[in-house]
Amino acid sequence: MITDLRINSSRLRADFDELAETGATISGGVSRLALSNEDLEARAWFANKIEEAELRVHDDDAGNLSGVYYCPDLGAQTLLVGSHLDTVPNGGRFDGTVGVLGALECIRMIREAGIKLPFHLEVIDFTDEEGNWQGLFGSMGLTGHLSAEHINDALEDHGPFRAALFRAGIRPIDVIRARRDPHSLRAYLELHIEQGPRLERLQKHIGVVNRIVGRATYQVTFYGEAAHAATTIRTERRDALLGAARFIIDAQEKIPQLYRDGIFNCGNAEVKPGSFNIIPAETRLTVEVRHPEQHILSQMEDTMVKMAQDFADQHQLTVIVRRALLRGAAIMNADCIAAIERACDQLGVTHTQLVSYAGHDAQMLSGFTPTGMIFIPSVGGISHNPKESSKWEDVERGTNVLLHTILGMAGLV
Amino acid sequence: MITDLRINSSRLRADFDELAETGATISGGVSRLALSNEDLEARAWFANKIEEAELRVHDDDAGNLSGVYYCPDLGAQTLLVGSHLDTVPNGGRFDGTVGVLGALECIRMIREAGIKLPFHLEVIDFTDEEGNWQGLFGSMGLTGHLSAEHINDALEDHGPFRAALFRAGIRPIDVIRARRDPHSLRAYLELHIEQGPRLERLQKHIGVVNRIVGRATYQVTFYGEAAHAATTIRTERRDALLGAARFIIDAQEKIPQLYRDGIFNCGNAEVKPGSFNIIPAETRLTVEVRHPEQHILSQMEDTMVKMAQDFADQHQLTVIVRRALLRGAAIMNADCIAAIERACDQLGVTHTQLVSYAGHDAQMLSGFTPTGMIFIPSVGGISHNPKESSKWEDVERGTNVLLHTILGMAGLV
Repeated sequence: MITDLRINSSRLRADFDELAETGATISGGVSRLALSNEDLEARAWFANKIEEAELRVHDDDAGNLSGVYYCPDLGAQTLLVGSHLDTVPNGGRFDGTVGVLGALECIRMIREAGIKLPFHLEVIDFTDEEGNWQGLFGSMGLTGHLSAEHINDALEDHGPFRAALFRAGIRPIDVIRARRDPHSLRAYLELHIEQGPRLERLQKHIGVVNRIVGRATYQVTFYGEAAHAATTIRTERRDALLGAARFIIDAQEKIPQLYRDGIFNCGNAEVKPGSFNIIPAETRLTVEVRHPEQHILSQMEDTMVKMAQDFADQHQLTVIVRRALLRGAAIMNADCIAAIERACDQLGVTHTQLVSYAGHDAQMLSGFTPTGMIFIPSVGGISHNPKESSKWEDVERGTNVLLHTILGMAGLV
Repeated sequence: MITDLRINSSRLRADFDELAETGATISGGVSRLALSNEDLEARAWFANKIEEAELRVHDDDAGNLSGVYYCPDLGAQTLLVGSHLDTVPNGGRFDGTVGVLGALECIRMIREAGIKLPFHLEVIDFTDEEGNWQGLFGSMGLTGHLSAEHINDALEDHGPFRAALFRAGIRPIDVIRARRDPHSLRAYLELHIEQGPRLERLQKHIGVVNRIVGRATYQVTFYGEAAHAATTIRTERRDALLGAARFIIDAQEKIPQLYRDGIFNCGNAEVKPGSFNIIPAETRLTVEVRHPEQHILSQMEDTMVKMAQDFADQHQLTVIVRRALLRGAAIMNADCIAAIERACDQLGVTHTQLVSYAGHDAQMLSGFTPTGMIFIPSVGGISHNPKESSKWEDVERGTNVLLHTILGMAGLV
């Protein structure tokens, strides 16, 4: 009975443990920065795994690496399933890896069971999801969002990036050829760790992602006037750091009050001239805002810019607000959500819908093909950290949900 | 009549303009960093001026450079008068220079008038007042406050400092020999620009300094926890920058409320890890507090440390407060104050007592010998800036007040 089909947990576990050695750090984490030697080694290992599974190895012009299980109808669409094998520096063993190895295991089980699908099934490892060079590089390439400016920004020296691409066999001039025809795709599914504590606290096995937050990053620079801190009259101080501090506190308090589910972070502050006894003339803040709904994200951005301007005025400062990045909010496909939830129900697995506050390749794919995302719990919500972990039973359970979502979308369960 | 004696303003002006060429910057300021080639050139020029004036050149083991007009009684005490010829980078032409050249002019006038004094009169240029290497180096040396740790701090590499001292003919091992016997001194007088706007606003010619603020500098470091800015639950954020921002604002508001005449400045902030999407794990602030009264400065320090601890507690942070420097508040000598005020009154010059919020060599001398300080107005209060300026009539007037203060202390007017 196809409904009884389950993944081979010990085989998946063996793959997982083997891969964790590539780029392993002494603290128990992993450093497989995109396009590094460790990443290239992981990709070679993964290509071998694809061949061992008697799937077709495929790599595209953006370096995305796939294994394909073709269905008899060569003109059929492709169901893409995957995630990424690269990591942040000294990150965890689960982020991305679970989604790629889980997808491979699903395809192996389906092929070994002799199941015929109405679509090609393809496991994919996307290039540089984490942004060692350019976040979501592979999924941007596949969806046609990669342009020359991502590799050749006039503001930055991209020489080392281009060199890294060449070392990995990716020719910058060719990356635009990674774009696929969206009609060739049936859908995209991604299994991933939650990277937050909600599932654990809700005591749910599976999170069915309904949205991925949009994200905008900014440099907000306040300009005042350098002056002797002791001899300048208090009312005449034009202290760029003081205005910036008020902005940080107010934005941190009010943005989540005004916009439920809105997130504001100020991650850095740089002060000039930076001396004990000189009033700060310049303070540059590195901030970001996130929200699951695109039109509210836009409102948040406007509010934040206005707050910066108001505090600048109050403190007799000027302010320049520069947006560094905008990544739109993404809505997951209703049919994909329904397929994941049905798979959970059939397997007797508890589930809840969740917003993803982190970015994923699924974000890029969602505007291109129907996309669904499955979260498994993260122990303590910890991620991007050597302590990142998920219970193995949750990895196994999530992979079985992915398997049955695929079977469901094939109309077989 | 000695009461009619006035300085030679055009000669002083010629000296002033000539010296301003040494280290002149294109913006109209001066860079004569202590022990730099420009500083050494200025000292050689000054030694020539001393010889031209037929005074005895003297330099001590801390590099302080003097010209002495000896009185017939070789066992008499010495009245020291001076300031410093070094500047901050791209600073003004008046800071320090007015005091040294003004003192030289006073001595020239007294000698040329054939006036006999009951003390030796010595014009002195103190080494590194501004702190290019070690603030108040020369006056610390003369008063016996210089120890090996100022040149050989285990926490810092003082190699370049030692090399600069050697180039200037100062042997680090000998600097302790610059200490004088306090009984050899009659008093110390310093003419200086105000570096603030108070005299200008009060429309007074002269400020008679009654106190110099004490100053304590700190590094205040808040420690939180780095975490993913988007997936971490708001109430569980331990944001080191947020706690630091609240501390900055509260200290900036409350310290001057609690302590009249108290000054708080936060001049720098350094954040780690410093990324858009990571909650700041560490924020190191560079702060200082100043107050004219030593016991209140101590209270301010305690209050500031407590505030840092309170905000750390409120934001679930830890904080480490490290004092980098403590320079005690200084009280000017009542007899010196009276002598300066009498000179003003005799010359028909308006005056007011003022606290100095900046540090001066007089601060070091005040605990060693009776000390007095004369301020002249700074145009717009601007200092440590190429735009720093004082009207020439104020320079002339201040120098005449210095001259008559000397004559008054000699019992001659």
